[in-house]
Amino acid sequence: MTTINAAFYRGDRTFKVEQTDVPPPAAGEAQLRIAYCGICGTDMHVFHGNMDARVGLNRIVGHEMSGVVEAVGEGVTNVTPGQHVVVRPLDPCGECPACQRGHSHICHKQKFLGLDTDGAMQELWNAPAHTLHVLPEGMRLDHAALIEPVAVACHDVRMANVQPGEDVVVIGGGPIGVLVAMVARDAGGNVILSEVNETRLGIARKLGFDTVNPAKEDLKAVIEERTGTKGADVVFEVSGSQPGVDAMTAVAATRARIVMVAIHATKPQVDMFQFFWRELKLIGARVYEPQDYDKAIELVASGAIDAETVITDVSPLGDIQQAFESLDSSPTALKSLIKVGEVA
Amino acid sequence: MTTINAAFYRGDRTFKVEQTDVPPPAAGEAQLRIAYCGICGTDMHVFHGNMDARVGLNRIVGHEMSGVVEAVGEGVTNVTPGQHVVVRPLDPCGECPACQRGHSHICHKQKFLGLDTDGAMQELWNAPAHTLHVLPEGMRLDHAALIEPVAVACHDVRMANVQPGEDVVVIGGGPIGVLVAMVARDAGGNVILSEVNETRLGIARKLGFDTVNPAKEDLKAVIEERTGTKGADVVFEVSGSQPGVDAMTAVAATRARIVMVAIHATKPQVDMFQFFWRELKLIGARVYEPQDYDKAIELVASGAIDAETVITDVSPLGDIQQAFESLDSSPTALKSLIKVGEVA
Repeated sequence: MTTINAAFYRGDRTFKVEQTDVPPPAAGEAQLRIAYCGICGTDMHVFHGNMDARVGLNRIVGHEMSGVVEAVGEGVTNVTPGQHVVVRPLDPCGECPACQRGHSHICHKQKFLGLDTDGAMQELWNAPAHTLHVLPEGMRLDHAALIEPVAVACHDVRMANVQPGEDVVVIGGGPIGVLVAMVARDAGGNVILSEVNETRLGIARKLGFDTVNPAKEDLKAVIEERTGTKGADVVFEVSGSQPGVDAMTAVAATRARIVMVAIHATKPQVDMFQFFWRELKLIGARVYEPQDYDKAIELVASGAIDAETVITDVSPLGDIQQAFESLDSSPTALKSLIKVGEVA
Repeated sequence: MTTINAAFYRGDRTFKVEQTDVPPPAAGEAQLRIAYCGICGTDMHVFHGNMDARVGLNRIVGHEMSGVVEAVGEGVTNVTPGQHVVVRPLDPCGECPACQRGHSHICHKQKFLGLDTDGAMQELWNAPAHTLHVLPEGMRLDHAALIEPVAVACHDVRMANVQPGEDVVVIGGGPIGVLVAMVARDAGGNVILSEVNETRLGIARKLGFDTVNPAKEDLKAVIEERTGTKGADVVFEVSGSQPGVDAMTAVAATRARIVMVAIHATKPQVDMFQFFWRELKLIGARVYEPQDYDKAIELVASGAIDAETVITDVSPLGDIQQAFESLDSSPTALKSLIKVGEVA
């Protein structure tokens, strides 16, 4: 056993950093010394108490991590101590219809690491070794903490099959929206980002994107004007809002692909007539597959993802409560990281 | 000029059969002697007065037709008098973004023959020759009047890319739903048809389909039981109803393709979470392309479409008013044809 610091979710919008004992890695596990861990929108849902039934009141969250292999358990051959790694935080059952059809990332009984199990907001984490991706030499570990959300964006863009020269609209300029925009641009898309928050619009412009504030401009008219009445070839709905769902069909070209990235907790009204009339496609996209991680690592390494601009805050593990509170009250941040510990 | 009988829509749920003069076919036109013309759901919308602004009160409707080439205008070389033909009733602009991208069937300025122009409920019809498909020897002209709606079904099934052995659910057992079911079965799908009208369920069973009445049985439970919890690989939403839209996501397997066949006049609530969670695809499908007509002709010729069972009524042109009223008041009919005239 090794005594470490870990941040436990204790309910009532509270994280407490406490000492806990970590056993050596079991068979099939790798013990990781965590460097950084990003705060995901899902972690905010935990903070808000919306996921208490799923996570309980004794959970170490965190899945947008980077770290170093400290030790490996029996039978682990894919990594060795000292390697820099990230976790692809999915542990599928292998037996359900989705797994049997090769879609284990959307396993019917998926265990999501850091929600259904303890996660990376602790100095040492024993994680299944099959979930690890080794980082290239020289990649900064703070930048590497973006790989998980970048992999989400890579999956979204791959599912849309964005082609060079296509007109792309991203609806919603939060962390995932901005990453989707960057990955779509790397794929050759002409990206326009729609967002109502002026701070986020400013970040998007700083990242080089054309932006529209649909609260101030008629998004449909702007897209029609810029595309010669054709409309957008690809639309990413990342806002999770009814206006976003209204916009996704309004701006779409004939046979456009619309990717549903957002998590809609309630059922929005959808313009099904437009799907019929313009032969639109809607493509649901969730998490990532291994090749999306490979692509994400490549894009962070190449600088196609401007990690310096996306990462707006870094706090030490001891300040995790304050980091969540700050993210909650003033959403001018894009991506906040927790520096969990020092690594070699 | 030739004096003929034609059925004019005069508003107020009224068709009047009157004599009118037809000119010789203009350049690019073929003059067709109409044998049969089916009554489409769209024609019922005209009858109900819902499309007065589009069709006016002096319109000859009808597009599900079969006939014989009587004469051809200048420059027409693709057909010759005496050939049995059907019309693919689309006259696209050729210039809009959809046409330029090869999607002329969903042209932004589509003229739909028999709605935006006069149609086939007349003894002689001058139609654009480029819209004609020649029928194979020996095909009955009453059966051929089904080719247009069968082509809709062929387009839907092609857009879904139904593969042999896939589990297919068709929601809605009206004329188009039943035709979609038959075309999907021909493609190798294991088809289950969901419908609340007992008469239509009886016809579907007579056509050899497994059926479910979702007003009496839990459709989701039935599909899960029959597919080993996997769900349907392909779903066709043909009902145009909120319960149909609820069912389409509920019965879908991971990465299922859902084809939106129905015309939803109002925006239904759609379970967008399920699209995300199971990576579902929604595919809008409208009318047909030339290859769908070729396939439809093949399926009617081979008997894969059981035309005898699908055609439940045939009325002479003089009884068109009664035919619409009867279809409106007692929907036990599946497909009603008008016998427009005698052909050689």
